[in-house]
Amino acid sequence: MNTEPTKTTPVSELGEFGLIKYIAEAFPAKNKETIKGIGDDAAVLQHEGLNTVVTTDILVEGVHFDMTYCPLKHLGYKAVVVNLSDIYAMNATPKQIVLSLALSSRYTLEAVEELMQGVQLACEFYGVDLVGGDTTSSKVGLILNVTAIGVAKTEELVYRSGAKEHDLLCVSGDLGGAYMGLQVLEREKAVYQESSEIQPDLKGLDYILERQLKPEARRDIIALFKKQQVTPTSMIDISDGLASEILHLCQQSEVGCRLYEEKIPIDHLTAQTAEQFGLNPVTCALNGGEDYELLFTIKQSDYDKIKSSGEIHVIGHITEAQEGAHLVTKTNQ
Amino acid sequence: MNTEPTKTTPVSELGEFGLIKYIAEAFPAKNKETIKGIGDDAAVLQHEGLNTVVTTDILVEGVHFDMTYCPLKHLGYKAVVVNLSDIYAMNATPKQIVLSLALSSRYTLEAVEELMQGVQLACEFYGVDLVGGDTTSSKVGLILNVTAIGVAKTEELVYRSGAKEHDLLCVSGDLGGAYMGLQVLEREKAVYQESSEIQPDLKGLDYILERQLKPEARRDIIALFKKQQVTPTSMIDISDGLASEILHLCQQSEVGCRLYEEKIPIDHLTAQTAEQFGLNPVTCALNGGEDYELLFTIKQSDYDKIKSSGEIHVIGHITEAQEGAHLVTKTNQ
Repeated sequence: MNTEPTKTTPVSELGEFGLIKYIAEAFPAKNKETIKGIGDDAAVLQHEGLNTVVTTDILVEGVHFDMTYCPLKHLGYKAVVVNLSDIYAMNATPKQIVLSLALSSRYTLEAVEELMQGVQLACEFYGVDLVGGDTTSSKVGLILNVTAIGVAKTEELVYRSGAKEHDLLCVSGDLGGAYMGLQVLEREKAVYQESSEIQPDLKGLDYILERQLKPEARRDIIALFKKQQVTPTSMIDISDGLASEILHLCQQSEVGCRLYEEKIPIDHLTAQTAEQFGLNPVTCALNGGEDYELLFTIKQSDYDKIKSSGEIHVIGHITEAQEGAHLVTKTNQ
Repeated sequence: MNTEPTKTTPVSELGEFGLIKYIAEAFPAKNKETIKGIGDDAAVLQHEGLNTVVTTDILVEGVHFDMTYCPLKHLGYKAVVVNLSDIYAMNATPKQIVLSLALSSRYTLEAVEELMQGVQLACEFYGVDLVGGDTTSSKVGLILNVTAIGVAKTEELVYRSGAKEHDLLCVSGDLGGAYMGLQVLEREKAVYQESSEIQPDLKGLDYILERQLKPEARRDIIALFKKQQVTPTSMIDISDGLASEILHLCQQSEVGCRLYEEKIPIDHLTAQTAEQFGLNPVTCALNGGEDYELLFTIKQSDYDKIKSSGEIHVIGHITEAQEGAHLVTKTNQ
C-alpha cells in the first residue's frame, strides 16, 4: 500500500509560461499539416488547397460537468471528442486542436496533468495535434474551450442542408445511453451526499457510464463512408438529442421526415436503466443528448453499400417539407 | 429625456438556438475564403494552398476585465482584437474568428447584444468573419473565448525564432499606456466604492483609457511591411509587457540583445500619469503589458524602407546569445 502523500503543486508555482512549456513538451506535432505548433503567437497549418473546417466548444464546471464524479482525465478526453465529433459530422478529418484553460486556485498542477493526459489520449487516438492555446486563472471552477480544425475535399463536405425527399434517415450506434449514465451518476451523488459511508453502486453499468464520461466520436463511420464511396446528403452529430438534431436537419434542408419509434436503436442496458428510473427509453433517446452519434441522410441507392456494418440504423425517411417532421409511434403505425 | 425603462430580456427566454440565430443574422460572411459560416457543425474555410494560422485567447470576468468600468461593447471589441494581434504578429492576415460565450444568469439579451456589437465592429474594421461558436451558461460571470484564423504565404510567415545578430530591435507605437489606463480605472473604482456620490475624474485621459479598454491590433504595420517588401526576421505582439516579450524573442531565436532605455517610446500622457502615481514610466512600458504593439527584428538593410512611417521605433539591436538580454539605462550608457 502506498502511504506516501499525493504530491500537489499549485499551478501558480509553475506560472503560465511553465505550464505552457509543460504542455508543449507533452504534445509534439505529428501531422504533416502542422507546420508550427505551440510556442509562437499562433500555430501554422498547411492544407494544400483542402478546405479547412473549424468548430469550437466551451465546457464549464457546474454546467457541463461535475467534479464530484467526472474524473479529470475523462473530462480532458471528452472536451476533445465533442469537438472532433463536429468535424466528423462535416465528413471531414480533424487534424489540430487549440485549447484554452481557465483554472481556479484549487486546481493543482497534478490536476492539470491529469486533465492533459486525457487531452493527450484523445489526440493520440484520433491523430490530431494540439497546436496552441491559452491558460489563465478563473474565479470559480474550471473552464475549458477547445477549437478543432479539420480538412476535407470540397466534394466530400456534408452540410446539414442537403437532405432530399425519399432519402433514408440513419443514425450510428445507439442512443440515450449518455443520458442514463448521467442519471445514475446524479443518483449516486445524491446518495453519497446524504451519507458518505455509502459507496456508489455502479456495478454492471459500465456501458452507460462510459457513454456519459468518455464518449467517442464516430471516426469509424466517416472511414466507412470513404471506403464505400458513400457521401451522405446531410449530416449532424447528436449532442443535444435526436429530436432536436432531426429538426435542425429538416429545417436547414427544407424537408420533412417520418421517424419510426421502433427503429430507434437503444442498448438493452439503457432501456433497463430507464425503466428503473420510471423513464420511457424512447424519450431518453429522443431528448437525452450527449451521445455523439451521427445522424445522416443517404440516397436509397447507397444503402446496400453500408448496411453490413452493423453500426448504422435506418430510422426513417425524408419527406416533403409540408409534411413536417413526424414521429411514427408503435401504436399509431 | 427618455424616461422609459431600458428593455431587459433574460437570455434564457431566447434559448441557445435563438441566440445563435440572432448572432448568425448579425454576422453574414464576407470573405471569399469563408465557404460556410455559422449554422452547421463546423465552419468551412478554403485557403487555396495558403498557410492557415490559428490562435486562441480566453477572457474571464474578474480576471481579465471588470464589469464596473469595462463597457460590454469595448469588451467584445477587445476580445477579437487581442486574437487578431497574434495573427498579425505572424505577419499573417486574419480572416475568420469563432467565439465561445459562457454567461451567468445576470446577463440579459441586451447585454449580449451590446457585447456582440463590439465583436461586430471589430470584425468589420479588421475584415474578418465570425464563422461559428458556442454559447452556454456559467455559474459566475462572463467568459469569452475567441479563436482567430488567418492566412499567409510560406515566405511571409514570421516566427519568434528568426532574429539574428546585428538585426535591429523595433517596436510599433508607444508602450505603457494600457497599464496606466488600468491604474486610473482602478483608482476611480476605489474612489467610487468609498462614495458613490463622487463621479470618476477621467478628463483628458482618453488616450490611456482607450489603450486599456479598446486597444487596436497593428494591421497598418503588417500592411507597411507588405508595401515596402520588408519581412521581419522575428516578431511577437506585446501582450505581457516589453521585457517579457523581448525575452521570448531572444530565447526562441537563441540570441541576446541590447535594449536602450531612452529609445523606448512612451506617450507623454502615459509618462505624466505614471509620475502622478509615483511609478517609473519605463517600468510601466517594460512590464505593463496589454499594449498590443508589435515587437520585431529587421535586417539593418531594411531600416531605410520603413523609417519614414513614424510608427516604428528602433529600441536596440540583437547580439550573440552569450551576451544575454541587456537593458542599457540612461545612467549606464
